[in-house]
Amino acid sequence: MKAVDVIIKKRDGMELSREEIEFFINGITRGSIPDYQAAAWAMAVLLNGMTERETTDLTMAMARSGEMLDLSGVVPLAVDKHSTGGVGDKTTLVVEPLVAACGLPVGKMSGRGLGFSGGTLDKMESIPGFRVNLTREEFLQKLGDEGLVLAGQSGDLAPADGKLYALRDVTGTVPSIPLIASSIMSKKIAAGAQAIVLDVKVGTGAFMETLPEARQLAELMVAIGRLSGRKVVALLSDMNQPLGNAVGNALEVNEAIDTLQGGGPADFREHCLVVASHLLVVGRKAVDIDEARRMAETTLQDGIAWQQFRRLVTSQGGEVSVVDKPALLPQAPLVETVAAERSGYLLGIDAREVGETSVELGAGRARKEDPIDHAVGIVIHHKVGDHIGKGEGLFTIHANDLSKMVAARKRLLAAHQWSDHPVEPLPLFYGIVE
Amino acid sequence: MKAVDVIIKKRDGMELSREEIEFFINGITRGSIPDYQAAAWAMAVLLNGMTERETTDLTMAMARSGEMLDLSGVVPLAVDKHSTGGVGDKTTLVVEPLVAACGLPVGKMSGRGLGFSGGTLDKMESIPGFRVNLTREEFLQKLGDEGLVLAGQSGDLAPADGKLYALRDVTGTVPSIPLIASSIMSKKIAAGAQAIVLDVKVGTGAFMETLPEARQLAELMVAIGRLSGRKVVALLSDMNQPLGNAVGNALEVNEAIDTLQGGGPADFREHCLVVASHLLVVGRKAVDIDEARRMAETTLQDGIAWQQFRRLVTSQGGEVSVVDKPALLPQAPLVETVAAERSGYLLGIDAREVGETSVELGAGRARKEDPIDHAVGIVIHHKVGDHIGKGEGLFTIHANDLSKMVAARKRLLAAHQWSDHPVEPLPLFYGIVE
Repeated sequence: MKAVDVIIKKRDGMELSREEIEFFINGITRGSIPDYQAAAWAMAVLLNGMTERETTDLTMAMARSGEMLDLSGVVPLAVDKHSTGGVGDKTTLVVEPLVAACGLPVGKMSGRGLGFSGGTLDKMESIPGFRVNLTREEFLQKLGDEGLVLAGQSGDLAPADGKLYALRDVTGTVPSIPLIASSIMSKKIAAGAQAIVLDVKVGTGAFMETLPEARQLAELMVAIGRLSGRKVVALLSDMNQPLGNAVGNALEVNEAIDTLQGGGPADFREHCLVVASHLLVVGRKAVDIDEARRMAETTLQDGIAWQQFRRLVTSQGGEVSVVDKPALLPQAPLVETVAAERSGYLLGIDAREVGETSVELGAGRARKEDPIDHAVGIVIHHKVGDHIGKGEGLFTIHANDLSKMVAARKRLLAAHQWSDHPVEPLPLFYGIVE
Repeated sequence: MKAVDVIIKKRDGMELSREEIEFFINGITRGSIPDYQAAAWAMAVLLNGMTERETTDLTMAMARSGEMLDLSGVVPLAVDKHSTGGVGDKTTLVVEPLVAACGLPVGKMSGRGLGFSGGTLDKMESIPGFRVNLTREEFLQKLGDEGLVLAGQSGDLAPADGKLYALRDVTGTVPSIPLIASSIMSKKIAAGAQAIVLDVKVGTGAFMETLPEARQLAELMVAIGRLSGRKVVALLSDMNQPLGNAVGNALEVNEAIDTLQGGGPADFREHCLVVASHLLVVGRKAVDIDEARRMAETTLQDGIAWQQFRRLVTSQGGEVSVVDKPALLPQAPLVETVAAERSGYLLGIDAREVGETSVELGAGRARKEDPIDHAVGIVIHHKVGDHIGKGEGLFTIHANDLSKMVAARKRLLAAHQWSDHPVEPLPLFYGIVE
């Protein structure tokens, strides 16, 4: 088999066989297929598409390109959740302790933030001492002992995906639904997941900006699950405005703690309860979504989820005294609450603008190697549909530099759109694919 | 400007600006744009196309990526001819001496054969001593002194095209009309051509197998000429059967000599007269095609073209005694004429099969670095439409190995298709684009 013939077949819009896909991915992994052939192939895939069968074969080939984690000796059923990334998305920080507290063990490998989208690892590292770089043995041991572990991805999981992703980033081949779906699913499957809840974000602050493309991605990932023997449920959730109120690492940890203690913003709390309920169903801790919901609500109200979070912090070396007293989390030197310049109904809060402003303040990275400031960020005080009086607090900026503060204020004011007439709140979810 | 943004723009089907194309081609030339970005871009161009304006800008950017030859100090008007390649296409060997003998100087840079298609340089090297690797100074001096020179392409002409072509070959991005057109035209323009006659082959033995795609290529190259201020005429000529009778290097030189001496196969002679006539018109040696035709016929009949060919051989170090007595050209040890196994009308002679059989005999290269045998090849004895009696000679094989001879006989017999009913001869030309 020759790499160029596989490229030509996809260029001509034909369906690749499993053998051809495995040959190509093995070649990328071993380096026998050079980057320029992988790049031409990726562009042909982006422009000509792939069937569900091809995408499943691609997913499995990438999953098998490195170590395949087997959690069956540690947990009865390995569940995982994945968010496609958004602004203010600290869901993992609440949902994972919540389901673990319900008796469903979860070992999660998370990523770092890039661009306007934040990352769970960065958020957790706001807690002094918290270690995300665990060995394979530590990961398995903590999962078995605590029922909960939260770490960075191991270097040898799905290495073909890592290589291909780096190449896609510089060749304009990122926004391909089959390539995105196989990238996500290959890492989850390599990490041992048998049942997965996908939180597919849609809106200005998400990678999928429209509902049709988000639904297409969700359907393809559910199909990959079906064809590869994994249970997969995908939620289509709103990302036109930030999730919850806080955007920025320590600020989001603070909001997660509030929520775990029974408070927190209503939208974020509801979002977490829905995601957790689905995890409990696919993880067979509840027979249906109603039972799962009752279980999740009770566990949250009783403070058991919060105790689970505290144990997670302790287990991975974090200072539990800090999460017990969130004022001890990193604090920005400059804090300013900006008031509404008019009264009216909030028509929109551009989530991407909020995310990018947060990056500008130092909370995120434009490039992988950039340092971040855990203290800085933004707290919005209203959601779409709220009525706000002139002079009421609209948002609060946490900054480490006055000029950045001034730029953020201007940008955030422009990110809030107004109406004189009542506005419907945005839905939290647009649908479920399963 | 960023390379990835240029790729994304073409990926999304948009038209690239001249600045973007120049930036990209300069980056490829200097090496600041890596192969994987060039490969992704080439695939996007192949699948999404380019406008005439984009293709012209690409052509000029590649032409200017290295030295631009200026022939204006040596010839009044620099003309050139280019064939897109075929089987038995020894046209240059006759046409260039013919027009030079009519007083139109031509300095031609030719290529070598690759795959089923032969190359002028390989053919001329059948003549002992003939040198095709000339310095720039030798090229210009011979053009000025003799009015005729035939050499290999200089390394520094259109280096971006050389790099891009090597990459296209291994990334499945060869068959893109805009990339083919700009590759051909950039080399001609860099070599100083002000007026060009293109011989665009169409059929089983050509790179363009159908008339619509050949016409599209011809029209695009004529448009590039118009937009870049060069006079370009494109002939659409048949390549469903070999041109003339001989396929193989020394065999083709022999046939070219016959033709220059007033003989040769009728189809090949006519093809040469038409191409030469158009060259004389674009080179302003004749006011119209009728005058040009008379001029070409007379020059051929009077033996002046043949004398010009002899001077070309001498000028570039070849042994003129060999062309005076073609039996001295390289001769294959095994020569067999194969008879028709039936009688009937010749319905087809698959030109690609004949070309590939010739490569198998050793006359051509599967890969650039393969050696060739100048003596071997095939002479067909009939053209499509001929009536042939059982037992008449159908073709003659010149081989250096008995097993290759046997394989060639079988393959060539299968390449001849028969009919019991009269068959129309194939046309020589399908049209002219200008």
